[in-house]
Amino acid sequence: MRVRNKPWAKDFIKDHSEYIVDNPEQWKGKWSNRFNKKQPIHVEIGTGKGQFIVEMAREHPEINFLGIEIQETVIAIALKKVVASELPNLQMVHTDGAGIDTFFDEHEIDTIYLNFSDPWPKKRHAKRRLTSPKFLDSYKKVLKKDAPIVFKTDNRGLFEYSIITFNNYGMYFDLLSLDLHNSEYMEDNIETEYEHKFSAKGPIYKVIAYFNKNKED
Amino acid sequence: MRVRNKPWAKDFIKDHSEYIVDNPEQWKGKWSNRFNKKQPIHVEIGTGKGQFIVEMAREHPEINFLGIEIQETVIAIALKKVVASELPNLQMVHTDGAGIDTFFDEHEIDTIYLNFSDPWPKKRHAKRRLTSPKFLDSYKKVLKKDAPIVFKTDNRGLFEYSIITFNNYGMYFDLLSLDLHNSEYMEDNIETEYEHKFSAKGPIYKVIAYFNKNKED
Repeated sequence: MRVRNKPWAKDFIKDHSEYIVDNPEQWKGKWSNRFNKKQPIHVEIGTGKGQFIVEMAREHPEINFLGIEIQETVIAIALKKVVASELPNLQMVHTDGAGIDTFFDEHEIDTIYLNFSDPWPKKRHAKRRLTSPKFLDSYKKVLKKDAPIVFKTDNRGLFEYSIITFNNYGMYFDLLSLDLHNSEYMEDNIETEYEHKFSAKGPIYKVIAYFNKNKED
Repeated sequence: MRVRNKPWAKDFIKDHSEYIVDNPEQWKGKWSNRFNKKQPIHVEIGTGKGQFIVEMAREHPEINFLGIEIQETVIAIALKKVVASELPNLQMVHTDGAGIDTFFDEHEIDTIYLNFSDPWPKKRHAKRRLTSPKFLDSYKKVLKKDAPIVFKTDNRGLFEYSIITFNNYGMYFDLLSLDLHNSEYMEDNIETEYEHKFSAKGPIYKVIAYFNKNKED
């Protein structure tokens, strides 16, 4: 996501350190301390302007949510929503998702959300895609054994790549929708800002994938 | 595929036994004897009106093709094309694809094609889908170890089901397209009659899946 630089962003982040951290390594294994209650932790990597995770946190008080975003201006926009929401189960993390296994303990996380991640369409940039095998290695470390990756995108190329990558990595699919907005799964769907804007232009794809098979078919 | 019964079908089939068999069990392990040359065998299950397999056989003289179809009138229409083509590497099989492991030896086949198979949309009919686990069991038996299933459909529900089924069965994906007709893979695509008619109405999905991993990623 590209946004114009906002001059207020840096100070706004500094002034709301109760809702945002920029030193995630120091919270490794202790993320529950950022919240009122010790409960499952769900992480969105590339949280963008925050609509998804704020709504999720509002609907699921029984879960602690962390939104990771590297771009300062973007996370400042999300942080505005977070501050306004006053939710005790929602925190922002200003950092690069690539380092996720350096700031979470093994099996510290209960769900990872990837929403409309950068498609990096050129083949030589495939390693930068958030669903590439190197990223899966790090997700596998920090996710609980029976925890899913929940992935949504409107980018066909990224979704095709991700399905092949997840599958050949040995992950198991629980849900697969090739047109989420015209499916039975829409009822529970919480939109991102991007999704709201672009879902009319073509299908939204979704998959829920696990590193371990939870049940016998 | 539903077609009106054609009175000429039965006799036409009887008169062209050089191109069609209706006693497939008797050819188990000996299918190469139906062809001029011993070469890889590719099988289309549910060959319909035959356009796909006739064109494939014409383009690939180095491969022997078998088209399986249960409906008499439909296979008679396909057989007309086969007879007219006079190809030495193309044979029809009038039978039910469900019995494939009763009329092929283990690892006798080099590729299975499933094109626009009946979607059986009701959940209670899922077992009848040609990509259900029971069918995969039989395909695994008759396919060579490094041989693929090549599956095309325009039915979103069937494709979603099939990707999950292949995945949970432990198969590997080599190619996945969620819009074949707008993809780099169109160059090699050979259409079925159905595909030609319906590709304008929505995307054609395609996957190539293997029971064994052929290469390291």
